[in-house]
Amino acid sequence: MTPLKNDLFLKALLREPTPRTPLWMMRQAGRYLPEYRATRAKAGSFMKLCMTPELACEVTLQPLERYRLDAAILFSDILTIPHALGLGLEFEAGEGPRIDRPVRTAADVERLPTLDPERELRYVMDAVRLIRRELDGRVPLIGFAGSPWTVATYVVEGGGSKNFARLKAMLYGAPELAHRLLAHLTRATTDYLNAQVRAGAQAVMVFDTWGGALEPAAYREFSLRYMRDIVAGLVREHDGRRVPAILFTKGGGQWLAELAGSGADALGVDWTTDLATARAAVGGRVALQGNLDPSVLYAPPAAIRAQVARVLASYGHGAGHVFNLGHGIHPDVPPEHALAMVEAVHELSPAYHA
Amino acid sequence: MTPLKNDLFLKALLREPTPRTPLWMMRQAGRYLPEYRATRAKAGSFMKLCMTPELACEVTLQPLERYRLDAAILFSDILTIPHALGLGLEFEAGEGPRIDRPVRTAADVERLPTLDPERELRYVMDAVRLIRRELDGRVPLIGFAGSPWTVATYVVEGGGSKNFARLKAMLYGAPELAHRLLAHLTRATTDYLNAQVRAGAQAVMVFDTWGGALEPAAYREFSLRYMRDIVAGLVREHDGRRVPAILFTKGGGQWLAELAGSGADALGVDWTTDLATARAAVGGRVALQGNLDPSVLYAPPAAIRAQVARVLASYGHGAGHVFNLGHGIHPDVPPEHALAMVEAVHELSPAYHA
Repeated sequence: MTPLKNDLFLKALLREPTPRTPLWMMRQAGRYLPEYRATRAKAGSFMKLCMTPELACEVTLQPLERYRLDAAILFSDILTIPHALGLGLEFEAGEGPRIDRPVRTAADVERLPTLDPERELRYVMDAVRLIRRELDGRVPLIGFAGSPWTVATYVVEGGGSKNFARLKAMLYGAPELAHRLLAHLTRATTDYLNAQVRAGAQAVMVFDTWGGALEPAAYREFSLRYMRDIVAGLVREHDGRRVPAILFTKGGGQWLAELAGSGADALGVDWTTDLATARAAVGGRVALQGNLDPSVLYAPPAAIRAQVARVLASYGHGAGHVFNLGHGIHPDVPPEHALAMVEAVHELSPAYHA
Repeated sequence: MTPLKNDLFLKALLREPTPRTPLWMMRQAGRYLPEYRATRAKAGSFMKLCMTPELACEVTLQPLERYRLDAAILFSDILTIPHALGLGLEFEAGEGPRIDRPVRTAADVERLPTLDPERELRYVMDAVRLIRRELDGRVPLIGFAGSPWTVATYVVEGGGSKNFARLKAMLYGAPELAHRLLAHLTRATTDYLNAQVRAGAQAVMVFDTWGGALEPAAYREFSLRYMRDIVAGLVREHDGRRVPAILFTKGGGQWLAELAGSGADALGVDWTTDLATARAAVGGRVALQGNLDPSVLYAPPAAIRAQVARVLASYGHGAGHVFNLGHGIHPDVPPEHALAMVEAVHELSPAYHA
């Protein structure tokens, strides 16, 4: 493999000094980019785009052509695991994901197969290998998966949900069944992330999009615990280099101190927690990634720049900050507004690393 | 007026001792009750139900017939103010609210009329007077309004929203315009709540449903500040009795210490913050109201009882707790499950007031 030309992102995740704050954007390969929409149209369907390594590679690289970003993230979806488990995943236009065969009973859980990621999820590993080749060492590649809790919400509800009626009924009414499902997803997710690392992912991130919908005791028992198990099972060094792990619970600002003890190298922080507060909470144990409100990108470029300045100042001086949005970039944001953000980080962040 | 026969709720809000923990449910007069759905059908439309005092009174009293609750809450909506401002409010089936004439420019804000609540919102005051008469002192009546920030999201976006694209673009790009709109809504809301108090509301609550979508600095500047202004302008005594004020920012768990300095008597707490944590954060300055995850009511009665026990234990011993859900009761919850919750509070809470 070509040696890495820009390792700012990996260094910041390990709290090593860098000359400026590295950045990438959650969902940077996405619908806000016209070139993404063109490739998506060519693919025909969202899952086809995920499952065709050449096209997944194409959209992964698109944002790097436009913006001075410090990492690429594999183009994929957190629901590849339910898809590989044979639960019948479909994306309906404007409807979000649908799972044809939701998992609701003990028999449903027993029936779940054990995955071999290089077989059932081979298309993901092929995409990782192809992206690494095409990146040619420009920036590191991030692999990812959904948290077991978050994936379970789709698997049990049969799609997206607001109130998580069935999974919460299970959590409170039949907790041992919920634990069996989560343990199965945890094993599959750990193997999946490790396969991504062996295929070439240089950092991994776990997206716990719905952990913030739990009360604190349930969060600890049904989400945090399984993310901790994943981190404990990860390959932490590959190709002679540490592979940093990032955990991100959206709405988890109140639990950052606990997340900091999970074994992860870095935590994602959404915009509802000030980075100064977050930094104090984690006490130097982990790096932080975030946290501009993605809706700031609806405002004009001058306002975006001012808010980037505020986020950089809230983290303050020293190592251990990866700039990012606090959640995925919205599909209706103008690409020039993302550019204003990227350029502001390049211009304003060196002062915090003097 | 008949003297109040059950003042546990008012006492708890003022942190005075009570023999057990009083309770009510957010959205207790709502779609989960078949008798509500019957009255709603009779009314023809949601706004007709709000605007017909006899029907609003009927649904307000329905949950008190079923459950041993310690407060009634006026049946109304947080969007009565935009409706009264002439912005053209409609509720479309399955679509949520729509505002026909959203407020987006300086001219739009200038054009907003000053409200006289006893004129444009007379139907609300008539409902309050009628409910007080029909309650006949059984339990106190809560009046309410939306927070200026929360109401502004509908007024600017033209309806419900996920990302608040237009209002956040205004907040960051034209903050002085956002402030003019919020100041106008604050005056109208203060007058509106005071009119409810004069008509007979014995406590008032401000629902800040969307404050939790803001980053902390913006929350302070665009939501908390205006709620503090409302509290400062409220009639705090009526008919020889203190009228407690409750503020509730959903997703505001990280800001409870700041909210505790707002002048309110009590704070609503959603389920993502443990009441022990919340109680420590507010340091005895306010009472707390909450916070069972409303989705717990999807679980079987035995599990509901265990979770009620957990919430009561998390607040612990002593005065100053009003039991409630952490958000409105979901429309698809079985009424018997709400009963299990109510009965558990009656049975289990006296131990915390010994």
